[in-house]
Amino acid sequence: MKQNIYDDHAFFANYSKMPRSVGGLNSAEEWPAFRDLLPDLADKRVLDLGSGFGWHCRYARQQRSRFVLGVDLSSQMLETAKSLTADSEIEYRQSAIEDFEFRDGEFDVVISSLALHYVEHFDIVCRKIHRGLASGGTFVFSVEHPVFTSRAEQDWYLGHDGERLHWPVDNYCDEGIRHTSWMTDDVVKYHRTVATYVNTLIQSGFHTEKILECGISKERLSQRPDLIDERRRPMFLLVRARKPI
Amino acid sequence: MKQNIYDDHAFFANYSKMPRSVGGLNSAEEWPAFRDLLPDLADKRVLDLGSGFGWHCRYARQQRSRFVLGVDLSSQMLETAKSLTADSEIEYRQSAIEDFEFRDGEFDVVISSLALHYVEHFDIVCRKIHRGLASGGTFVFSVEHPVFTSRAEQDWYLGHDGERLHWPVDNYCDEGIRHTSWMTDDVVKYHRTVATYVNTLIQSGFHTEKILECGISKERLSQRPDLIDERRRPMFLLVRARKPI
Repeated sequence: MKQNIYDDHAFFANYSKMPRSVGGLNSAEEWPAFRDLLPDLADKRVLDLGSGFGWHCRYARQQRSRFVLGVDLSSQMLETAKSLTADSEIEYRQSAIEDFEFRDGEFDVVISSLALHYVEHFDIVCRKIHRGLASGGTFVFSVEHPVFTSRAEQDWYLGHDGERLHWPVDNYCDEGIRHTSWMTDDVVKYHRTVATYVNTLIQSGFHTEKILECGISKERLSQRPDLIDERRRPMFLLVRARKPI
Repeated sequence: MKQNIYDDHAFFANYSKMPRSVGGLNSAEEWPAFRDLLPDLADKRVLDLGSGFGWHCRYARQQRSRFVLGVDLSSQMLETAKSLTADSEIEYRQSAIEDFEFRDGEFDVVISSLALHYVEHFDIVCRKIHRGLASGGTFVFSVEHPVFTSRAEQDWYLGHDGERLHWPVDNYCDEGIRHTSWMTDDVVKYHRTVATYVNTLIQSGFHTEKILECGISKERLSQRPDLIDERRRPMFLLVRARKPI
């Protein structure tokens, strides 16, 4: 049973107050890294898996994508996305990521931002995306980093005065479900290793082109000194993969 | 200045007592994972960078490699390796890994076991290996995992009774030198992220074929229950990369 936490009212109310929900992509700390992984989107057919409020869909059209399909499980997310979108070439569709059915080669670019750690079977999704991409197509995604998802607590280890001593890792090699508390109780995520993410892409027929774990460059810290702890542990894993021609 | 810690007498004396030094490959917990990444070695020209006591060189010849060259910086390691080797098709040569000069396409397989985290410039070494490999050749290596090298302490975070609470990560995104204590004081290692290892391979022209972080399978634990904590954090990163034809 797929969890539809974004249709939980308490969760949704809290999520809607997050900086990235209010301010969009530029309020998401990993956005510059994600954007740098994207190919030229002009005239491309783009799919966004886990499209949320549609920020990435609208960005793709600003970059002159031919059309964009946003897929999300949550009707609340989709409603908000639609209310923020005035573009006949952006379509939103309600579906779990795992259930979305591709036609062969119907997209040039598939993106997914911080959604695939909610998906139990990454291998199935990877094979579907590979089939749905045209030859030479690109798959760019971000997930919570395995170092971040290994423990269900997903928090710093604190000292007596509440200072952040270090980031704790445990049970890294034991992949599978994690019952986390984020915005609300029992948000189900799936922990996978970096190796599994990369190997699953390769086994699905992709070439891995680039990986990013440290989205916050030293240069960026000068503008956002509040992000300094993001250099201490990898919070996001971002990958660009390509379907070979 | 490259550190030649394996020619330090105290270090060498301690290293020589390690299970893997006495018992060879089968006493190295990551060996089954490393072996599984190797291609068929029959009739191959093999280079081992950081060959140590020569265990991998002799294994390659057992697998009917045509010849094997072992390169190591430490004269003490090379002396022991030679004393353990009676095979005219295994040659040992003293050189820092970074200084080894390849002829174009002279090897079919390059391996390196737990040596490249001592190397400051992985990018330079990668480009050299790519040049030294024949078209279609394979590069298999293991390093201490970035989750393991992020903190110079390289140790578990312990509770009041000495129990292992979790594995601490810090300064993950700040790559570079780590002054560690392992066998002796101030062993210099270089911390790099997983992303840097993978991206450097790709930028050097390799295709990444497979990554392993969890060398200890659940099955293996039934034979080696003492390794159970090795499932809690990734200690080794193992990679197989290929020079495309």
